Parts: sequence; C-alpha cells; structure tokens
Amino acid sequence: MPIHEFDLIRWIRRHAGTGKGVLVGIGDDCAVLDPGEGKLLAKSDAVVAGVDFTPDARPRLVGRKAANVNFSDIASMGGRPKFLLATLCLPPHLPRGWAQDVVRGIVDGCRGAGAVLIGGDLSATSGPAVIAVTALGVADNPVLRSGARPGDAIGVTGPCGGSILGRHLTFQPRIPQGLKLAAIATSMIDISDGLTADLDHILDESRVGARIESRRIPIHRDARRLSKKSRRTALDHALTDGEDFELLFTTPEKLFPRWATRIGTITRRRGLTLDGKAIEPRGYEHILG
Amino acid sequence: MPIHEFDLIRWIRRHAGTGKGVLVGIGDDCAVLDPGEGKLLAKSDAVVAGVDFTPDARPRLVGRKAANVNFSDIASMGGRPKFLLATLCLPPHLPRGWAQDVVRGIVDGCRGAGAVLIGGDLSATSGPAVIAVTALGVADNPVLRSGARPGDAIGVTGPCGGSILGRHLTFQPRIPQGLKLAAIATSMIDISDGLTADLDHILDESRVGARIESRRIPIHRDARRLSKKSRRTALDHALTDGEDFELLFTTPEKLFPRWATRIGTITRRRGLTLDGKAIEPRGYEHILG
Repeated sequence: MPIHEFDLIRWIRRHAGTGKGVLVGIGDDCAVLDPGEGKLLAKSDAVVAGVDFTPDARPRLVGRKAANVNFSDIASMGGRPKFLLATLCLPPHLPRGWAQDVVRGIVDGCRGAGAVLIGGDLSATSGPAVIAVTALGVADNPVLRSGARPGDAIGVTGPCGGSILGRHLTFQPRIPQGLKLAAIATSMIDISDGLTADLDHILDESRVGARIESRRIPIHRDARRLSKKSRRTALDHALTDGEDFELLFTTPEKLFPRWATRIGTITRRRGLTLDGKAIEPRGYEHILG
Repeated sequence: MPIHEFDLIRWIRRHAGTGKGVLVGIGDDCAVLDPGEGKLLAKSDAVVAGVDFTPDARPRLVGRKAANVNFSDIASMGGRPKFLLATLCLPPHLPRGWAQDVVRGIVDGCRGAGAVLIGGDLSATSGPAVIAVTALGVADNPVLRSGARPGDAIGVTGPCGGSILGRHLTFQPRIPQGLKLAAIATSMIDISDGLTADLDHILDESRVGARIESRRIPIHRDARRLSKKSRRTALDHALTDGEDFELLFTTPEKLFPRWATRIGTITRRRGLTLDGKAIEPRGYEHILG
C-alpha cells in the first residue's frame, strides 16, 4: 500500500471528474465546495468486506453500492446528491486493479446520481476492506421521519424482497422519486433494514401507528424466487429482507401519487397491524413462520 | 455488535450534543445543516488500529485523534470546523466501553474545535477497528497549497519532531492560528507526513522551490529525547517525523507574523535546499545520516 498510495491518489484524481459547485476537488487539504441553494444534507455509511459484500463480489459493484447506499439516504430526505468523499481501508494482497475498480464503481454511482467524488482517504489495514463513504446533498424542504400523521396514506416506490439475489448491489437510488415526493410527503425513509423495520422507524419518530394490508404489498419477483428455497413466504421476504432501497413514505390521503403503491394507513393508535393483526416489525419471520 | 448497535446509537445521540447550524442531528436518514456564511470545506481521514494507533492506546485519545486530524486539515485551509460524521467499524470482543470511549474522544475533539458530531455509521468487522471521520467546515477565503510565490517567507506554528512519544494522539489542531493566517498566507498545509514532505506538497502545487536553514527549524523537546535512542539527530526528527499537526505556511515577507517561526524562503528555482545543499524531501534520513 504505501508504495502505491500516491500513484493511486493521482489515478483517482484523474478519474474523479469535476462538476458544478466543486471549487477545489481532490488534492488539497480539504475540498472546497459551493453546495448552492437549500439546506445541506450529510450522511455517512460504510460497506465492509464479509459483512456488506462477499469476497467474490465484483469490486465495481461494491464501489457503486458504497456510493448508492448514501445517495439513497439523500433521496429519502427529498434531496439532491452533490458531493461524495470515500475512505478506502485496504488489506495487502488484493487482486490487481481491485481498488481502481472500487473507485470506478464509486464514480459510476456519482454519475448516476449527478454527484462528484471530491475527496477521501486511503489507508492500509490488516483486516477486511472497508469502504466508508460520506455523501453531501441539498434539499429545500428535507422530509424527516417524524412528520407522519393519523390518516396519512403509506406508500412505497417499488417492489420489495429478495434483494440478496443481486439487487442489493445493483439498485438505483430513488432520487427522482424522492424529489417528486419532497413536495407532498409528510415522512420518508429508504428501505434498508426491511419494510416493516423501516416503517417502524417512521412510526417511532412520528409517535403514531399503522395498518398495512398484505394484498397491497408489492412483492419483487426475487422474493418469489427466494421463497422457493427459503421455506419462507414471498410476502415475508418483501416485509423483512431489507436492502431494497425503495422509498417508504406517507402523504395526506388526497395527495397520494398515482405512480406509487399504497400499502396502508397511518393510525393514531400506536403499533403496527398486518391485515388487522398486531405484528412485531422485527423478528417478523417468527410470527409469520 | 448487532445486539448493541441500537443501544449504542441511542447512547451516542445523547452524548453528541448540538449546536448552531444543526437543523437535524443524529437519528434521521441524513443530518440537515445550515453551515452559514463562507465556502464549505470537506475532509475525510481515517485512523486504523495497528496503523495509526496501537491496541493499547487509550480509546478516548484515539477518538480525539480521529476527530483532530480532520480538524487540522480544516485549520490548514484557514477554516472553522463546524460538523463531524464518524463511522466506527468495530471487531467483536472489544474491551467493555471501548466504543463509548472512542465516541467520548470524538466529542472531546469536536468541543475543542467548536464543532458538533452530527452523524455516522456503526458497522461490524472481523478485522482491526477503523474510525473513519468526515469533517465539514467553512472558510471565507480558503488557503490552498498552490499559492506560494518566489520571495515568500516560510513559517511554522510550533516545534516539530518526536510526536510518536505521545503528541500524535494529544495534539491540538491549530485552528485559531489558521484563522489568523487566512488573512495573510499565500499557501498553507498541516504537517502530517513530515515537515519537508509537506513543504514539498506546497512546492509541487505552487511550482516553486525553497531554501530552509537548519538553525531556524524549531525542534521539539520530544525530538531531542527521541534522538538519544534513535541514533538520528533531533533536526532529522523535526524535518521528517510527521504527525506534528503544526501549520506550515508561506506569506509575503512583510506580512510574516511575529508569533510564528520563520524557517526559510520560497525560491523561483525548483527543489529544496537545507543550508544551501539540495535535499530530498522524502528519505531525508538517508542524506543526513
């Protein structure tokens, strides 16, 4: 690592590109930025070898995931991604080109989100690779988890479940959808822990409850494929798998957008019900199983 | 880790504090910030167990170092630290309270710098602990590495060398000094790689050379202590050890501040000389030895 560090930084500097709002990019002590109008959003999230990806995962997809999990959080506030910083902690004896491919994937993610790689850090480690990312964005009116009100409709931007079959690496963060929802949503979150677990975060922060209906839950075909092997229902996968990176949101009933899928309603009474029966957001399989 | 993750997040949320410009802190998908006037500065730097600290280092000092290495970079742009995000990748079987003490140290660093811990990420790893930090700050006129001009005086804010004896963990980032220098410095960097190596970064980016004089180099007493064991001169330690986190800067001759130590002059001719003899910024000991 020490021998290649400065070469790799030079290589990254060439591949990082540039963009509006980047006054000084990679190469000085700090990046200098003009984020433009709106409130500043900041999010850090890391992916770790052996935890968030397997050693045989394609490094370009690993880098892309590291960027996109952060952009998904910016999308879930109704924000616009602008800048990304990436810290790579790399073990010795990585396959040739592995670090470059991770950076290529990070840049893929940035391009897809309209953001720019502006800085980061390279470090050696004796353990598994860690890719720690910070994304910055802007939003005029950030949508928090805490604004859901009784009577609000609950919606999701796409089908869920079975992301482990590949989508957890290749998903597209729902940035355009988040921007559209920013004008109408009372609360929003991206589905990373699982549909019911993330809905529970909204319920907790908003101090409300919810009822959802199983026939309305959009189930991804990956959830159906996985259910054939897992001995769990496709619905169970859709409700609990996580890493779908769809947006889960609430809006006033009359403003609910046609293009999203309505799955339920916010209630004054705390707790979560599925088809009228109380369920636990976590350990969901235990109850369904 | 998975069992304690949400408890630890709740604990961090209580200890993170709050401050001006933090519209939403820890607990939602992103932090929401109003950085205020000036250009936005962003820096990421990680500390890794076994590389940047030894396993027996006090975790509170490790956390403080993780924060302060980033604040030092903001200081070196003449900026004011505002916000910090920290990603902790933690192996199993850490000593009890280790993670909390790291967070306490990060908060110590934030308080000392006038910044606020606003977010981050907790992750498991099977390898050594990684603490990846992103600091955000503001500066009206960020001082880059690239502005040194022939004839400029070269200065340093304090004595160098021997930081491995402890100062590499306990140093204070030179934020007030950086703010004072912002009005007069033509270039600035913090000394992390070593005095001559970091001076070389300024020379490279500014496309100039420099002459420095050994009798002017401020030598820390730690460098003298270390030289008794290391068979290297105290001057050699001061010029090459690194992790001093003093500011190294250039100003027009007439504006050089009384409170700093002048060590040399920027020259049109490229390259670095010490007492008139050409030296290599890296591998310095080889030439002096």
